[in-house]
Amino acid sequence: MDLAIPSLHEATSDRKPRYRPCLAITHGDPNGIGPEVVLKALADRRVRQFMDPVLVGSAHVWRRYANQLQLASLKLEVIAEPGVGLGEGLMGIIDILPRKKAKLALGQGTREGGRLSMEAVRVAADLAKEGAVDAIVTAPISKRAISLAGYKFPGHTEYLAARTGSDRAMMILVSDVLRVGLVTHHVPLGQVSALVTAGAVKRHIVRLSQSLQEDFGISRPKVAVLGLNPHAGDGGVLGREEIEQITPAIKAACKEEWLAFGPFPADGFFGAGRYRQYDAVLAMYHDQGLTPFKALAFGVGVNFTAGLPIIRTSVDHGTAFDIAGQGIASPKSMLHAIWLAVDIVGQHRLNDQVA
Amino acid sequence: MDLAIPSLHEATSDRKPRYRPCLAITHGDPNGIGPEVVLKALADRRVRQFMDPVLVGSAHVWRRYANQLQLASLKLEVIAEPGVGLGEGLMGIIDILPRKKAKLALGQGTREGGRLSMEAVRVAADLAKEGAVDAIVTAPISKRAISLAGYKFPGHTEYLAARTGSDRAMMILVSDVLRVGLVTHHVPLGQVSALVTAGAVKRHIVRLSQSLQEDFGISRPKVAVLGLNPHAGDGGVLGREEIEQITPAIKAACKEEWLAFGPFPADGFFGAGRYRQYDAVLAMYHDQGLTPFKALAFGVGVNFTAGLPIIRTSVDHGTAFDIAGQGIASPKSMLHAIWLAVDIVGQHRLNDQVA
Repeated sequence: MDLAIPSLHEATSDRKPRYRPCLAITHGDPNGIGPEVVLKALADRRVRQFMDPVLVGSAHVWRRYANQLQLASLKLEVIAEPGVGLGEGLMGIIDILPRKKAKLALGQGTREGGRLSMEAVRVAADLAKEGAVDAIVTAPISKRAISLAGYKFPGHTEYLAARTGSDRAMMILVSDVLRVGLVTHHVPLGQVSALVTAGAVKRHIVRLSQSLQEDFGISRPKVAVLGLNPHAGDGGVLGREEIEQITPAIKAACKEEWLAFGPFPADGFFGAGRYRQYDAVLAMYHDQGLTPFKALAFGVGVNFTAGLPIIRTSVDHGTAFDIAGQGIASPKSMLHAIWLAVDIVGQHRLNDQVA
Repeated sequence: MDLAIPSLHEATSDRKPRYRPCLAITHGDPNGIGPEVVLKALADRRVRQFMDPVLVGSAHVWRRYANQLQLASLKLEVIAEPGVGLGEGLMGIIDILPRKKAKLALGQGTREGGRLSMEAVRVAADLAKEGAVDAIVTAPISKRAISLAGYKFPGHTEYLAARTGSDRAMMILVSDVLRVGLVTHHVPLGQVSALVTAGAVKRHIVRLSQSLQEDFGISRPKVAVLGLNPHAGDGGVLGREEIEQITPAIKAACKEEWLAFGPFPADGFFGAGRYRQYDAVLAMYHDQGLTPFKALAFGVGVNFTAGLPIIRTSVDHGTAFDIAGQGIASPKSMLHAIWLAVDIVGQHRLNDQVA
């Protein structure tokens, strides 16, 4: 799996014109690095050979960053809806703040920043639900800012699940060496143990396996399940969740013919490179999965939300308020998020043809 | 810092004969890969230029593995105490099971295996306490096996703290790119949050900083402190320990002129390579520190116990029962554990000369 080469599309290119998916891309928190990494990614000509982007958010925000970054190759134009014929070389903006300036405060989590972040996500998600775009790609938001703006959701994943009426949403981190799913997401560490039940673990093994089949085209996916406690509980001496919850969940999944293995102690599993033997890893909580993922993905990780009725990918980093507006943020993760969305759109079309 | 080159010793070598420390090395669980990695490490001629080893454990176990591995260069001989003149090329064993065969069950955690594991550690620790050796290096034990043998300790660190009467013991993971200290060690994940108090965090910042000074020779060490919750609590939205415990601990340590920074979200911290800017990282719990450490240390990590009256290093891996007795275990971590012990003995001698 090499995300940099959308092989699916290359492979079909000499038989018929390849399908160009249309992606709605949000700016995330306008006071973070989101608008910058999106515009830098879209200035990469390779990425626009494979898809048509629609920028969703405040046109004022998009233009401000495009000017600052001096990206002359990006000609932005406000449009009423995606796909309405734009001239060659123009890029459409669905403006969520028509004819108004956004109040920016670079590097700070503000109420206005939070509101614009979420409004862009809402509009992009609705476009995907209606079928006006094939997928959405989101830039990072600040949990603090959206909380100031009155949103009760801890993050994109939970918001999109509610907005699309899905109870199967699952965050999966994707890089070229590793895919990681999480049983619990944005909850305080002290609450994790109570949420790691046999039912929740089994449900996530199945969801992760289904996503590997449907979104990644792996017919018989192998999933490695991590333990919760140090040394995966070391036979019960360091915690009993492995014995009472996780192992029964693995057995139940195997009974339904899913290929689940473990539970493995998290530290040795990543240290020994054992993750290479599996199609994905199921971690029990946020930092257990994301910390080794980011250490190993070296800035090219992508966050994919499986189990939604729409396709959504995102960067694997935050708003990086400390370097906002400096022009030094790397668009690598955003580029990979765009490639992955293109690949998954292609995989779904392939599934539909086969079905 | 490059552990592969004990520069301290090289640097002094042309002025006077370098001091050759004597290290007591245990075999760990005799049914795991411990005896194998020790013997393979000692068969490396480079390592024996800088120190004199004393093998501590069952002579039967040591001989069985030496025969199996066909390490003809290792001539083993039972001795009564370290330092008693052995012929050139001989390696001494302090036999904890004189004239008896150990009951082995390769790949299994047994009562006998647990008893021999801990008896070797006890004897080695006592030799170091008496000053008969300069440091001890330990091979991995099985928590399950030592529990079967009636030991109540979750691991080496806690046992050695009790045995040497120390209440300042602290596990520090050391590699050439990263040093990681832990606030909590071998406790179930569900109990971690209650143990992350301002007092405990501050105490560990100070201990870690003191160890960096005394054991690693860094005069003004900088310590990065991780958060407990996802995104370090994201301003309180995902947990309040950062606000109520960790930040006050950092402030209290800074007030005493220690250089402590954070709290940082664990995932972004390792992903962005920020650990390179600090002399050590303080993690709140086992997997938060060890998982990225092992992912980044690539098999050459060492476990050092700071704050004991004796010097003790160890490998950073477990008994690996699944590959025990197969002759395929890598001695790299053990080699680095030996180098680090040699380096710290040298640093302590330097401290004594300056004082």
